[in-house]
Amino acid sequence: MTFVRNGWYCAGWGQDLGATPRAITIMGEAIVLFRGSDGQVTALADRCPHRFAPLSAGKVIGSHIECGYHGLRFDAEGRCVHNPHRPGAIPAAARVKSYPVVERDTTLWLWMGAPERAAAASILDLGSFWDLSAHSIIYGSFTLEAHYELVLDNLLDLSHAPYLHAGTLSNGPDEVSQLRVETKQEGSVVIANHWVSGVAPTPQFAPPWKARAPVGDFRSNMRWSPPCSLQHDVGITEVGRAPQDGPYLHFAHLLTPATERETHYFWAAARNFDIGDEKVSEALRAGISNAFITEDKPMIEAVQQRMGNRDLFELEPVLLAGDNASVRVRRVLDKLRKAEQAAPSSGAA
Amino acid sequence: MTFVRNGWYCAGWGQDLGATPRAITIMGEAIVLFRGSDGQVTALADRCPHRFAPLSAGKVIGSHIECGYHGLRFDAEGRCVHNPHRPGAIPAAARVKSYPVVERDTTLWLWMGAPERAAAASILDLGSFWDLSAHSIIYGSFTLEAHYELVLDNLLDLSHAPYLHAGTLSNGPDEVSQLRVETKQEGSVVIANHWVSGVAPTPQFAPPWKARAPVGDFRSNMRWSPPCSLQHDVGITEVGRAPQDGPYLHFAHLLTPATERETHYFWAAARNFDIGDEKVSEALRAGISNAFITEDKPMIEAVQQRMGNRDLFELEPVLLAGDNASVRVRRVLDKLRKAEQAAPSSGAA
Amino acid sequence: MTFVRNGWYCAGWGQDLGATPRAITIMGEAIVLFRGSDGQVTALADRCPHRFAPLSAGKVIGSHIECGYHGLRFDAEGRCVHNPHRPGAIPAAARVKSYPVVERDTTLWLWMGAPERAAAASILDLGSFWDLSAHSIIYGSFTLEAHYELVLDNLLDLSHAPYLHAGTLSNGPDEVSQLRVETKQEGSVVIANHWVSGVAPTPQFAPPWKARAPVGDFRSNMRWSPPCSLQHDVGITEVGRAPQDGPYLHFAHLLTPATERETHYFWAAARNFDIGDEKVSEALRAGISNAFITEDKPMIEAVQQRMGNRDLFELEPVLLAGDNASVRVRRVLDKLRKAEQAAPSSGAA
Repeated sequence: MTFVRNGWYCAGWGQDLGATPRAITIMGEAIVLFRGSDGQVTALADRCPHRFAPLSAGKVIGSHIECGYHGLRFDAEGRCVHNPHRPGAIPAAARVKSYPVVERDTTLWLWMGAPERAAAASILDLGSFWDLSAHSIIYGSFTLEAHYELVLDNLLDLSHAPYLHAGTLSNGPDEVSQLRVETKQEGSVVIANHWVSGVAPTPQFAPPWKARAPVGDFRSNMRWSPPCSLQHDVGITEVGRAPQDGPYLHFAHLLTPATERETHYFWAAARNFDIGDEKVSEALRAGISNAFITEDKPMIEAVQQRMGNRDLFELEPVLLAGDNASVRVRRVLDKLRKAEQAAPSSGAA
Repeated sequence: MTFVRNGWYCAGWGQDLGATPRAITIMGEAIVLFRGSDGQVTALADRCPHRFAPLSAGKVIGSHIECGYHGLRFDAEGRCVHNPHRPGAIPAAARVKSYPVVERDTTLWLWMGAPERAAAASILDLGSFWDLSAHSIIYGSFTLEAHYELVLDNLLDLSHAPYLHAGTLSNGPDEVSQLRVETKQEGSVVIANHWVSGVAPTPQFAPPWKARAPVGDFRSNMRWSPPCSLQHDVGITEVGRAPQDGPYLHFAHLLTPATERETHYFWAAARNFDIGDEKVSEALRAGISNAFITEDKPMIEAVQQRMGNRDLFELEPVLLAGDNASVRVRRVLDKLRKAEQAAPSSGAA
Repeated sequence: MTFVRNGWYCAGWGQDLGATPRAITIMGEAIVLFRGSDGQVTALADRCPHRFAPLSAGKVIGSHIECGYHGLRFDAEGRCVHNPHRPGAIPAAARVKSYPVVERDTTLWLWMGAPERAAAASILDLGSFWDLSAHSIIYGSFTLEAHYELVLDNLLDLSHAPYLHAGTLSNGPDEVSQLRVETKQEGSVVIANHWVSGVAPTPQFAPPWKARAPVGDFRSNMRWSPPCSLQHDVGITEVGRAPQDGPYLHFAHLLTPATERETHYFWAAARNFDIGDEKVSEALRAGISNAFITEDKPMIEAVQQRMGNRDLFELEPVLLAGDNASVRVRRVLDKLRKAEQAAPSSGAA
């Protein structure tokens, strides 16, 4: 078991969930998400207790979901509330698991652990990080065939960018030797800051930079919070200036384990430049999608394939300085998993 | 082992088997069917005893089949009758398993069990059910990735139609509460009759109904005979009239387990209206295929996926009144399987 | 373990390996081949020891290969020679396995066994067999989903040609009864000679034959050398003449096990007719590819599928005279495997 269940995981972007139910697999469990006519989002096990049809193949009726096979209806708590074949006669056992779900900051946060522990745990504050009153935001998502830890490794060691993203997110390997990295830990939060001074803007930042100067200070700062959320501040300023003085992107990278070998990757990026300009949004989204899906995804999947079913440490990797953050993250995750295994209620299906 | 071997299974429609051998997998066994120049149909293990080439990749020579790899020929009993490399020298061990097969009522019936028990067992009389002298018939087949019992469940509880087939085979959920169901058992035959009185004809029956009256009596009666054959009478009459007084379809649904997770579905429907009208045949065939392949098939496969490798009862389903017939059928199948396991000869490969 | 590791296997044709690294799987091991700027070919394990990225996704820098994920560089011995993140600081453990590889006669020969035994073993002399100073040659390759022994079986019993290749490489079954076969063994080399006297040229030889006479002496002589190399002399002469007096093809069929169920098939054919004529080359290559890929490949894969995970002898095949050579080859391979298992160093990963 490599999952931390007691934690909030992104199950999608709120604006993508309309009247049609959506199926998602998280930690191997089939889940249906739907938005009732009251706007409330519900997450249930995606399996009717009658004949095991996926409820996601059914439809939303008011604040209930109707199975598309024989018509049983379930409410937000997972209770059967209607049996069309014998109105009034609802089998007591007709009940599906309900998952705590919270819609906040345009994000659907789902809790996989013990429900009674959900309320107490704080949800990551993306609202103030994105500051949508002053910024523009774009969204994306895709699924990789790799363990989520390999995706975390990728995001926590950005020294891969000059090689994997040369010409897209990076100017290429020439500046690698100037890259400085700082890794910090604040409780269970791990921070990996990367910066280079006196470099030309990357292809992504060249347009908003608008040639203020030939070179600037480039930063790419990553902040991981358990279980799988990263806040990422990437930007460039004239040499010696404060971060807010230049164009930047505030990324959220939210990873959700689908299975042991599959990860949902939700990302969103708020920016402080060209606010409201749809063309800029579209160009940025296309560029980011391209880098994530045609550069990161195949590499991470190839790594997973090379590793097979073996754990990273079992393979005795030759670790470099850039791996510092991901090793710290693995230690935190390991501690959380062990604590869950020791605790009496886990919420596991 | 979830198969009943001592029983006749449909292996195809006679008119589809010409001079070219056809491969089919039944109960995990690769079988080749061919029609000799004398018209006789033969079923053999589809694996040459020499180098294990599929005989179905070879060709029919008279009443024999010639392996397409090195040219050995086999007769209807599976005996090697020709070795081209050393004419006259036929290895005694060169023999493949032969399966009893009977062509009757345009149906190829194959026996998977002990050959000596094949003759005694009666083959379902589809001839009088279809009455092809007075009716027109259409045929179809497809394969589903699901255990055959899940396909039986689907067919024995037609209360799924208002949900899964709304707008195609059914008018939708409005009439569900009026649906009456009667389940009966006659020996090892299970009958599930469904009817609604005073309803508009379904989209399928609207054309032959030709607006005789706004509403009628609609019936959909299913009769299962072991191991996997269903006779299905569906039709509509003016209120209070006898079944033969309105348009009807006499369906055969013949299921054949390919593997534990794959089922061949052969269907044919004889009708008492628009006899000989090819356009009506074509429209009916398209409509039925569409409902079976785009509505039933994905739902049954999704159910199989949700159930994984677990048996229905292991998952503790919440059963409704409509499940009565399929529970009875499972009991009969279980009894037949147990009887086979207790008997000395089973015919298992 | 069904592989003989101490032997030279073809890993590709030299002319196909340029500046771009190539990935190949041999005996389940992922290997990267690359040609340095000095022209030298190197074969390394295709897995960076840092984060397990495939080195084949990187690029060649001089005579080194650079990982495309974080930029470590490796030399021909598999030693890390550059760490861009901390120049000068190379972890001692950063090393990948290096495979002996020799480029000879346009062939890339790879050694999977104990490296110290590689030098001693002789590489098959294809140079004098092909005699490229006087002949023209064409090349091809493809991969089959079958154990390499089944491909050997196919090549060592050419009595399959009249059935599987009727109309392409053979005139069909009419001449089968006249086919004579001689099987010989010289040490660990197995020879299977096939000939027919007084026959019309096959479709492949009709063009160079140019109707010298209505019939001729046709031969198809196969010579297997361990572990997986076949030299194949196929040609036709006027009746009673010597082999060099008519048109012929000198084929090499070089098989390389990718996995237990997948085989790389490299072939090349040198000819003594229409030297330098590109149109003839193209027509021959198309004809051979067509026969190998649309006739042999599906048959061999179907045989593998019918055999499942079982070994040939476990299935008690009915062997014919034509199987003599392949049974001898299996005995030699068995002996070589047993000798390797008894020896202390095996080179296995």
